Amino acid sequence: MANGPQPRPLPSVLLLSLLPIAVWLIFRPLLSPAPPLPALHSSLGFSIIAFVAALYLVPALGGIMVKANLKGRDLLKTYDTPIPESLGLVCASIYILLLILFIPFPFTSWYNGHGGNSSGSKTREGLSINEFPHHLLSLYLSSLLSLLMATMLGFLDDIFDIRWRHKLPIPIIASIPLLMVYYAEGGNTHVVVPIPLRPILRRSLVNLGPLYYLYMSLLSTFATNSINILAGINGAEAAQALVIALSVVLNDLLYLPWPFDFRIPLHLLGGQKEVDVGGVWAAGMAYGSRELVERHLFSLYFMLPLVGVCAGFIYHNWYPARVFPGDTLCYVTGMAFAVVGIQAHFSKTLLLFFLPQIFNFVLSCPQLFGLVPCPRHRVPRFDANTNLLHPSRALFERPPSNLSTLVLRALSLLGLAELTVHPRTGQILETTNLTILNVFLVRLGPMNEKRLVQVLICTQIAGSVFAFVVRYGLAGLVYDGDRR
Amino acid sequence: MANGPQPRPLPSVLLLSLLPIAVWLIFRPLLSPAPPLPALHSSLGFSIIAFVAALYLVPALGGIMVKANLKGRDLLKTYDTPIPESLGLVCASIYILLLILFIPFPFTSWYNGHGGNSSGSKTREGLSINEFPHHLLSLYLSSLLSLLMATMLGFLDDIFDIRWRHKLPIPIIASIPLLMVYYAEGGNTHVVVPIPLRPILRRSLVNLGPLYYLYMSLLSTFATNSINILAGINGAEAAQALVIALSVVLNDLLYLPWPFDFRIPLHLLGGQKEVDVGGVWAAGMAYGSRELVERHLFSLYFMLPLVGVCAGFIYHNWYPARVFPGDTLCYVTGMAFAVVGIQAHFSKTLLLFFLPQIFNFVLSCPQLFGLVPCPRHRVPRFDANTNLLHPSRALFERPPSNLSTLVLRALSLLGLAELTVHPRTGQILETTNLTILNVFLVRLGPMNEKRLVQVLICTQIAGSVFAFVVRYGLAGLVYDGDRR
Repeated sequence: MANGPQPRPLPSVLLLSLLPIAVWLIFRPLLSPAPPLPALHSSLGFSIIAFVAALYLVPALGGIMVKANLKGRDLLKTYDTPIPESLGLVCASIYILLLILFIPFPFTSWYNGHGGNSSGSKTREGLSINEFPHHLLSLYLSSLLSLLMATMLGFLDDIFDIRWRHKLPIPIIASIPLLMVYYAEGGNTHVVVPIPLRPILRRSLVNLGPLYYLYMSLLSTFATNSINILAGINGAEAAQALVIALSVVLNDLLYLPWPFDFRIPLHLLGGQKEVDVGGVWAAGMAYGSRELVERHLFSLYFMLPLVGVCAGFIYHNWYPARVFPGDTLCYVTGMAFAVVGIQAHFSKTLLLFFLPQIFNFVLSCPQLFGLVPCPRHRVPRFDANTNLLHPSRALFERPPSNLSTLVLRALSLLGLAELTVHPRTGQILETTNLTILNVFLVRLGPMNEKRLVQVLICTQIAGSVFAFVVRYGLAGLVYDGDRR
Repeated sequence: MANGPQPRPLPSVLLLSLLPIAVWLIFRPLLSPAPPLPALHSSLGFSIIAFVAALYLVPALGGIMVKANLKGRDLLKTYDTPIPESLGLVCASIYILLLILFIPFPFTSWYNGHGGNSSGSKTREGLSINEFPHHLLSLYLSSLLSLLMATMLGFLDDIFDIRWRHKLPIPIIASIPLLMVYYAEGGNTHVVVPIPLRPILRRSLVNLGPLYYLYMSLLSTFATNSINILAGINGAEAAQALVIALSVVLNDLLYLPWPFDFRIPLHLLGGQKEVDVGGVWAAGMAYGSRELVERHLFSLYFMLPLVGVCAGFIYHNWYPARVFPGDTLCYVTGMAFAVVGIQAHFSKTLLLFFLPQIFNFVLSCPQLFGLVPCPRHRVPRFDANTNLLHPSRALFERPPSNLSTLVLRALSLLGLAELTVHPRTGQILETTNLTILNVFLVRLGPMNEKRLVQVLICTQIAGSVFAFVVRYGLAGLVYDGDRR
C-alpha cells in the first residue's frame, strides 16, 4: 500500500509579500483623497488575507482534526492514509472572522472627512455614507448569523454524521436569522411578474407575502445541498464554490459606478438597447440607483473573501487531496450564496449560476426519491490498475417498476445513463448512478480524477457564461425596464 | 462497581401544561389592548419554552453525545458509567434559536396598531415603538453573534480539549462582534468618575477610548472563565449561572415602568433619598429615562430565556448528575452576562454579582500564575467509604519560594488554606488547592457533594444580596445623581 501525498509546499516569500499589499488595500481608504468605493478596497485587502490565511492554516490545523478523529480515507486512491476531514471549518472560521473584522469599514463614517468635495462630488455622489446605515448593518449582521449557524450545523453534521434525509432541512434553520431580520425590517416581498404572465395576473408586481419567506429558506436549502451532493472527487466542492463566487463577483462589478466608461455590447446578446452610460453613476448597470449599487457592494463584501478562502483551500484540496472540506464548507458556501442572493435581491440571477447543480439535482431525483436504488456513495468507481474513474452503478435488487423503467430508458436515450439489461427479458438490471460526474464519464469515457474535476470546472464556467447570456441577453424578452 | 443513576423522570402532564401558557404569553401582546410591555410578555413565554425544551432535549440528546465520544467519568462518584458531556451545546442551541425567533417581537411595529390611545397614552408613553429601532436591532444581532461564537468556541474546546492557558483568551475572539458593532455604532466610551477621584481628574466624565474596548473584551473573558474555573462538582456551573441570571433579572425589573407604585426603602440601605415615584414612568428607577428602560428590557430579553434554559438543565445536572455541561455552557452563559453588562451599560453592577467568582479567581491566582503547584484537577477529593468530599491538596515537589511561603501562610492565617508543614523544618509540604470549594470544605469540614453545591448556591445568593446593598445603598457615596 503506497503512502499518501506529502503536504504541498508553500512558496512563503511570494505569499508573505501579499500581506503588505493587503494591509495597504485595507487602510488606503483612510488616507486622503479617499478612493471612490473605499470599503471595497478594504474588502479586497481582507480577501487577500483570507487567501493567505487559508493557505497556511488549513495544512497547519489538519493534524488537530485527525487527532479529534475527523479524518477519512480517500476512496479513489491506492493509498489509505487517513486524510484530515472537515477543514471547511477552518475556512469558515477565517471567512466569518474576517467578515466580522470588516464591520467598521462600510459601517462607519471614517471616509466622510476625507476627500471632501475637492475630488469632485460628481464621481462620488451617493457613495460616501452620510447617515449611519443602520438598516444595512442589521442585514449584514443577520447574514453573519446565518453563516455562523451554517458553519455550526455543518460541523455538527461532520461530528455526528447526520443521515442525508435528516440533513436536507438543516439549512432552513440556518436561514432563520435572515428571515427574521428581513421580516423585522419590513423587507419587500414583491416580485416582478414576467411580461408573458402579466395579462393573466393583470399586474406587473405581485406580493408573495409568506411565500416569499418560503422561497428564501428554500433557496438556502437548495444552495447548500446542491453543492453538497455534487461532491466526492478531490476539489469538487471548493471548485464549484469558487466558480460560482467569481460569477457573482463579475455580475456585481457590472453594477458599480466605474470611474471610466465602458459599454456592454448588449445587442450582440439580443438586447434591445445599449447600456446608458454617463451621468453621476458613469458606467455600470445601476442606472443611477444608489440602492442597486449598495446591494451589489454588499454582495461583493461577502463574495470577495469567499473567493480568497476557497482559492486558498483548493490549493490543498486539489488532486491528490491533502485535506477534505467536510460538510462544513458546503454549508457555509451555500449559505453565503443564499445570503447575497436574498439580501442583494438577485436570487434569480444566482440560480442561473447554479445550472450544473440544478442539472445534477434534477438528474438525481429518481435516486433521491426512491425510483432507483440509491447506494450510500454515488462517486465514480476507481480502477486502481489504470488509475481511471469509471461510472459507478446502482444494482436493482428487485425488478424496477414501470415508472422507473420509463425514466431510465428516457435518460439512457438522452445519453445521461448507461443501462445493463437482461439479455433475454430486456429488464433493467443496473444503471449508472444518476449524477453529473457519472454523466461526464458516460459521455466522455473513463478518465482520471484530476481530469474529471477539470471537466466539472469547465462545465461550471460554461454554465456561468450561458447564465450571463440569459440574464443580460434574453431576460429582456420577459422582463422590461430596469431589470433588477 | 455500582451502576450510574437512571435518567430523572419528567412529569409530562405538569410540564406540557406549561406550553399553552407559554404560547398565550407569546401571542397575548398581539391582542388588543396590548399590555404595557408587550415584548416582555413574549420573552417570558419564550423563556418557558426554553425551560421545557431544555428539560426534554437534554436527556434525549445525551445518547448522541456519548456516541460522538463526548462523555466523561464523574470523578466524585463510586460508579464509572460514562456520563454524556457537552450538553451545554444543547442548552446554547435552544437559547440562541429562541433568541433568534424572538427577533420580530421587540423589533416590529406589531403593537403600534393595537390599544391605540384608548388605553391612555399616559401609561404607555414611550413604550410603544414609533420609529424602527434599527440601532437596537444591530446591538441585539451583534450580541447573538457573540453568543453563537462563544457556543462554537466552547464546543470546539470540548472537542479538541484545548489547554486552559490557551483557552483563556478565547472569549476575546467571541467578543469581537460586540466590539465591532459597538465601534461602528459610535458607542459611548465615557465612564462616570467616582466622586472621590474627581478632584484628581478634575472632571466627572472621562473618555476611556480604546481602553473601554479592552475593558469590554476583558469583561467577557472574565465572565466566561470565572464560571469555568468554579466548576467540578455536579450542578456548580449551571447553579452559578442561574443565580447570577436571576440577580440580573431582579436588577432589571427595578428599572421597568411598573403600572403600580412601589417604593424601595433606600434609606434602610444607607441611601440619602427615597426613590421618586410617579410621572409617566410610574415607579422604577429609570427616572423617566426611556433609554434606561430600553436597556434593561434588552437585558431581560437575554436573561429570561437563560434562566429558563439553566433551570431546565440543572434538573438533569443536579447531584447525582445525569449529564455534564461541558465548557460550552460556561462560554455561553459567561458571554450572555458580558453581553448584557456591556450593551445595557451596567457592567459594574454585573461584576458585583460575580463576587464569589472574583473571590475564587483571586484565591486561585497563586496557582494560576505558578507560585503554587497546580494539578490538572483541583476538585475536592472524594472518599468513597464515607461518600464525603475533602479538600484536595497540591504537593510541593520542590521547596516553595519565599513568596509562595508568605502567600500561603497569609491564606492559612485567614483560614482559606490548610497547610501540611514539615514537623522539624517548618517547610510547607502541601497545601489545599486554592479554590472556593476547598475553602468551604476547610472551613465547614468534609461534606457530601450535594451539600457542597448547596453551600455554593447559598454563597452566590448571599453575594447577590450584598451586591444589591452595595449598588443601591453604598454607591451613593461614590456616585451622584442618576446612578446609571
